[in-house]
Amino acid sequence: MNPSLIIYLVPAIAVIALIYALIRAGWVRRQDPGDDRMQMIGSWVADGAMAFLAREYRTLAIFVVAVALLLGFSNAHFGAEQNTNGYIALSFVLGAFCSALAGFFGMKTATAANTRTASAARRGLNEALQVAFVGGSVMGLCVVGLALLGLGGLFIAYLKMYPDAMNGGDATMLVLNILSGFSLGASSIALFARVGGGIYTKAADVGADLVGKVEAGIPEDHPLNPATIADNVGDNVGDVAGMGADLFESYVGAIISSMILGAGWYVGLEAAEAGAGMNAVFLPLAIAGIGIVASILGFFLVTTEEGGDPQKGLNRGTFGAAFMMVVAAVGAIYMLIPTGGVEVTDVITGAVFTFQWYGIAISVAAGLIAGTAVGLLTEWYTATERAPVETIIQSSRTGHATTIIQGVAVGMNSTTFPVIVIGAAILVAYSYAGMYGIAMAALGMLSTIGIQLATDAYGPIADNAGGVAEMAQLGREVRARTDKLDAVGNTTAAIGKGFAIGSAALTALSLTAAFLTKMNGRVSLDAADPYVLVGLLLGCMLPYRFSAMAMVAVGKAAQDMIQEVRRQFREIPELRPALDAAQGAESEERDPTEEEAAIIAAADGKADYSHCVAIATAAAIQKMLAPGMMAVIAPIAVGFYNVNMLGGMLIGVTISGVCLAIFQANSGGAWDNAKKQVKDEGQSKWGDEFDEMHKSTVTGDTVGDPFKDTSGPSLNILIKLISVVAMIIAPMLSAYHFGG
Amino acid sequence: MNPSLIIYLVPAIAVIALIYALIRAGWVRRQDPGDDRMQMIGSWVADGAMAFLAREYRTLAIFVVAVALLLGFSNAHFGAEQNTNGYIALSFVLGAFCSALAGFFGMKTATAANTRTASAARRGLNEALQVAFVGGSVMGLCVVGLALLGLGGLFIAYLKMYPDAMNGGDATMLVLNILSGFSLGASSIALFARVGGGIYTKAADVGADLVGKVEAGIPEDHPLNPATIADNVGDNVGDVAGMGADLFESYVGAIISSMILGAGWYVGLEAAEAGAGMNAVFLPLAIAGIGIVASILGFFLVTTEEGGDPQKGLNRGTFGAAFMMVVAAVGAIYMLIPTGGVEVTDVITGAVFTFQWYGIAISVAAGLIAGTAVGLLTEWYTATERAPVETIIQSSRTGHATTIIQGVAVGMNSTTFPVIVIGAAILVAYSYAGMYGIAMAALGMLSTIGIQLATDAYGPIADNAGGVAEMAQLGREVRARTDKLDAVGNTTAAIGKGFAIGSAALTALSLTAAFLTKMNGRVSLDAADPYVLVGLLLGCMLPYRFSAMAMVAVGKAAQDMIQEVRRQFREIPELRPALDAAQGAESEERDPTEEEAAIIAAADGKADYSHCVAIATAAAIQKMLAPGMMAVIAPIAVGFYNVNMLGGMLIGVTISGVCLAIFQANSGGAWDNAKKQVKDEGQSKWGDEFDEMHKSTVTGDTVGDPFKDTSGPSLNILIKLISVVAMIIAPMLSAYHFGG
Repeated sequence: MNPSLIIYLVPAIAVIALIYALIRAGWVRRQDPGDDRMQMIGSWVADGAMAFLAREYRTLAIFVVAVALLLGFSNAHFGAEQNTNGYIALSFVLGAFCSALAGFFGMKTATAANTRTASAARRGLNEALQVAFVGGSVMGLCVVGLALLGLGGLFIAYLKMYPDAMNGGDATMLVLNILSGFSLGASSIALFARVGGGIYTKAADVGADLVGKVEAGIPEDHPLNPATIADNVGDNVGDVAGMGADLFESYVGAIISSMILGAGWYVGLEAAEAGAGMNAVFLPLAIAGIGIVASILGFFLVTTEEGGDPQKGLNRGTFGAAFMMVVAAVGAIYMLIPTGGVEVTDVITGAVFTFQWYGIAISVAAGLIAGTAVGLLTEWYTATERAPVETIIQSSRTGHATTIIQGVAVGMNSTTFPVIVIGAAILVAYSYAGMYGIAMAALGMLSTIGIQLATDAYGPIADNAGGVAEMAQLGREVRARTDKLDAVGNTTAAIGKGFAIGSAALTALSLTAAFLTKMNGRVSLDAADPYVLVGLLLGCMLPYRFSAMAMVAVGKAAQDMIQEVRRQFREIPELRPALDAAQGAESEERDPTEEEAAIIAAADGKADYSHCVAIATAAAIQKMLAPGMMAVIAPIAVGFYNVNMLGGMLIGVTISGVCLAIFQANSGGAWDNAKKQVKDEGQSKWGDEFDEMHKSTVTGDTVGDPFKDTSGPSLNILIKLISVVAMIIAPMLSAYHFGG
Repeated sequence: MNPSLIIYLVPAIAVIALIYALIRAGWVRRQDPGDDRMQMIGSWVADGAMAFLAREYRTLAIFVVAVALLLGFSNAHFGAEQNTNGYIALSFVLGAFCSALAGFFGMKTATAANTRTASAARRGLNEALQVAFVGGSVMGLCVVGLALLGLGGLFIAYLKMYPDAMNGGDATMLVLNILSGFSLGASSIALFARVGGGIYTKAADVGADLVGKVEAGIPEDHPLNPATIADNVGDNVGDVAGMGADLFESYVGAIISSMILGAGWYVGLEAAEAGAGMNAVFLPLAIAGIGIVASILGFFLVTTEEGGDPQKGLNRGTFGAAFMMVVAAVGAIYMLIPTGGVEVTDVITGAVFTFQWYGIAISVAAGLIAGTAVGLLTEWYTATERAPVETIIQSSRTGHATTIIQGVAVGMNSTTFPVIVIGAAILVAYSYAGMYGIAMAALGMLSTIGIQLATDAYGPIADNAGGVAEMAQLGREVRARTDKLDAVGNTTAAIGKGFAIGSAALTALSLTAAFLTKMNGRVSLDAADPYVLVGLLLGCMLPYRFSAMAMVAVGKAAQDMIQEVRRQFREIPELRPALDAAQGAESEERDPTEEEAAIIAAADGKADYSHCVAIATAAAIQKMLAPGMMAVIAPIAVGFYNVNMLGGMLIGVTISGVCLAIFQANSGGAWDNAKKQVKDEGQSKWGDEFDEMHKSTVTGDTVGDPFKDTSGPSLNILIKLISVVAMIIAPMLSAYHFGG
């Protein structure tokens, strides 16, 4: 295949993905938005989400401009290639812009889909499923489309500026170096969206739960609850935009790092077959393009007959896309990599290997299989009716403390097999295709995120639809349908979480390898060197501190929210009688009487939703700064002190971050489902023990909330961000420590 | 100094320590054991503790014989030095025997000191302090005495058998190789005592607490509580014997690994100064001997005037001993190491360094300072009235869940500075004296454990004295005195815990370095090698699985205990009315009326303590086998698969284990003290909030119990055991992978 064909074909595919996203977003917008009340609620959530984004992007803009200036300056100061200062800053700004835009479009559509899903749920389960899934797919398509369009477009532009880069060598490395700014931009947005979003969503959730549900005794989505809109906004902010930015970062990181590692191969490839020199650099882009096509084709497989199992449709879509991707990727690899085998000199270790084309194919497949396996393992450890969750339920019979201990034990236990699976993928990929293989495994895992992310984003849309149904008082039947939709999303959400952690780990390793490549083998990762050893130790500790900071931030933000809800209950005169009336109906599990309904209606719209939204927004943005700064400053400070210590730190933070993230995500997920299962089984199964068990599992769930939605997923960002920063500052470190 | 003088002087010092231990034990035995009832209670606790030891040592005997046979056989099969099979097995058996004997003597005296401390508390606070401290010091003296006598005696014997070993070279390595079996023996006992003891103590504690205190409403040490004796036995089993075996293992591990690393130096030393060739091998023994003398002198500094602060006396003892140790160690190093500097070829990296005598002295001091700093940091994060515990107390105002989250955050946060301190010590020690310096830093940290362990063991004795006072109904005044003694012990206990973790980390690293030395530099720790990387990842995961297993074991053992206590309350007819009477008095915070006392007296001795002891013993021994087997099998399986993966695993398990251990120990400690502080401040400070806060902090404390007393400290064992096993199997791995 002609390399320049790939270079232009890939952005073209990205444009197709974006056009398709536009079509699907238009379809969602044309759906019935429901009655006036539903539209009003929908607009509150949409406005709240946009208010958060606006505030986040304002802060981000300052951050991006500052970092861009710093990048330009520091490159000019330290870098050998002084003429690239502006370009790396441009890549950075564009990377941030593309990720932010994907988040914007995705959220816009997701919030529009909320009310429309609730509205469709009045007609039937399947109609609602379609709206929710199509709504989610816009996020998936925007992420892959904008990532590949931005990256591909920049690459074309830089190749035009440096035509020598088409032939491999220093010019190629220079182009990839300035291109990698795009990855740092993506990481910046991920930091704000995932960490800030994680703090937002849990602060709002805890506020809505603790004061609304526990203290006032009304459902958390009840219109009288001032925090309810913030809570619904939080689902979009955390699980749609946050997850999207997280995977955008992994996707871009995996592509760029495999291109850099491919560039380290060019000598061998050139020797093996004339003209194929740069193919290892173009291959990652080709695989990414194939993944987009496979994802779009996969969307057509997500159909459900009336009365059928929606889960099956989703599975057919994701597994179908994965299968098509592997088949097409094998073809692309066969065409791009010389069939006679490639003799490659590893830039990092200096060792010489001969790799076969099928070795790369095996690496891609290994990554995809490992990602799916980690996802399925995550599901097993956190699903209802399975052994791990059952043990937590049994422990809840002896109180809060034993529930917590068992949940912690389940989470810690659940690290074993995912770690073994990731380790196996690393060994397979490396032995067949070296460090390049590990990067290709990460890319294999991430290539179909177009459809993966669609199923991820489907979950919060279904969840929000339930919230709208509750607030618009569409009745118990509609609410039951949205609950069913939500339940379908739980499995895919669990798989998605495992997937995000696994891909973050492999991406971080690829980025580390790219860092080593850019340092030209002058960084040691040998733990017999005490600087590497201490770096490993420090890296291992960082996820603990980062997690602690995220947890404390949630706690503080939640306190602000709790105070505000209590204040409104106290100071807004209409709310108290309405709350009492609503609680009466709720405690007897019936719809309110006419009299009660009148009292509740009199309080309608009195709760000040927007103030709660503003508090959560301000708290989230403000409190993510400290952990974010730590993640950026730690690798810079350590790198300038000693590069080997930085090398150790990158490995340490990755291995420790993976374990701690799996532990926290799975403990949180298992507690969540233990609570759900106990509630569903109810008194009929547990008799007198039910009340205590329910209270204990609610405690577990509340502890698990920041674990699984804030501190756990934030570690994905931490491990990637630290390695991206290292990769970006590599030329400066080279200049500082080795004089160039 | 003449090397052979050191060889004989060191065991002589050990004998002096043992004689002094005997004298102090005799002094404790001569103290007033109290009235008949106190003596009876004392004998129950003593018998229970001995029953546990007997059962543990029976199981251990089988384990030791099996491993000894395996060691003999496998060495014969794989090893190049076939004539040493019997000797390494002998070292192993003797190491296990010495550690077990130290545990036996220490426990025997500690249980005797319990009642005698309670008895002395009837007369005054200072008398009680002296009995408790002298009782604890026997454990400290036995550990250092038996460790050094066993190790030194064996070393003399092996030197007689292999006279060439006095000249360095292969014969020296052979002797140190068979000597290192002693370290594996110590590790075996540590595994049983620390993990089994940790399970025992918390199972009994939870049983006594949950059914006795929470369900029946009586104090946990009340004579009507069938689990109370098991609870008191648990303190001895976990905190005296468990901590003793843990530090015995670290002490022996640090000495042997520094001797092995010193042997790696002999060429350079020989070249620098004739006759000084083996001094780097003898130096660790000399430092250990100096530490014993300093500890004994330190004991004389622990005096308190009537009305003085007992804490000051303890501090004067430990800091005084540390100061004397450093001064004398500097002298010894100056005499043993050539003053002109030593040119050394690092066996592992092949690099050539020149080290000065004062560099080794700096390493020893760095280790001691780091150990003390980690201890003080631990105290800061867990002490009452300090910021971290205050944040937990504030969080307890919003319930169970926020208390847990804040406690987790405090623990995770608390990893940062200890890790930085340990990292700094590694860098300082390495840059002044290479890998040998790191081992000497570990030894510096551990050299004064004679007095350190005395203050550690003092804590549970004071705690138990309170139990005896309660059970023997010595009245509120005596109980108040023992509570004060207990409070004094809390600070030293916190410091001791940090100390144990820090020394375990450095010892594990020294053992890893010894493993690398024994593998003759044929093992890579370079994380750019994917096997090392995967080994790091797997090693990082192991502490999570190990912790989870320990937590689940505690939960299951506690369930057995809870069922048994409930059964006794149900089936023993005299207990129920007595419980009601006792609860009445307790809830009104007064001594029982005569009528109530009569009812309680009628039930006296009806509770079947021994059955509870038997249940806790059986559960502890049985449930430590699975995690123990994992710790032994993992390095063997991985080592035979790939030695580089084993190298990575050793580093991974150490760095991850340290962080997870600090997190768990400090979360647990902080929750414990948050509960104590809330209880002390009481309703007068917190008003209506008090009840909920107290409940929440009790939940925190219950979650923290297995964290700080079982799974956390067990990680000290895990990281050392895995590296000891690796060091022991090094010759077999050499033969298997490299043919010798």
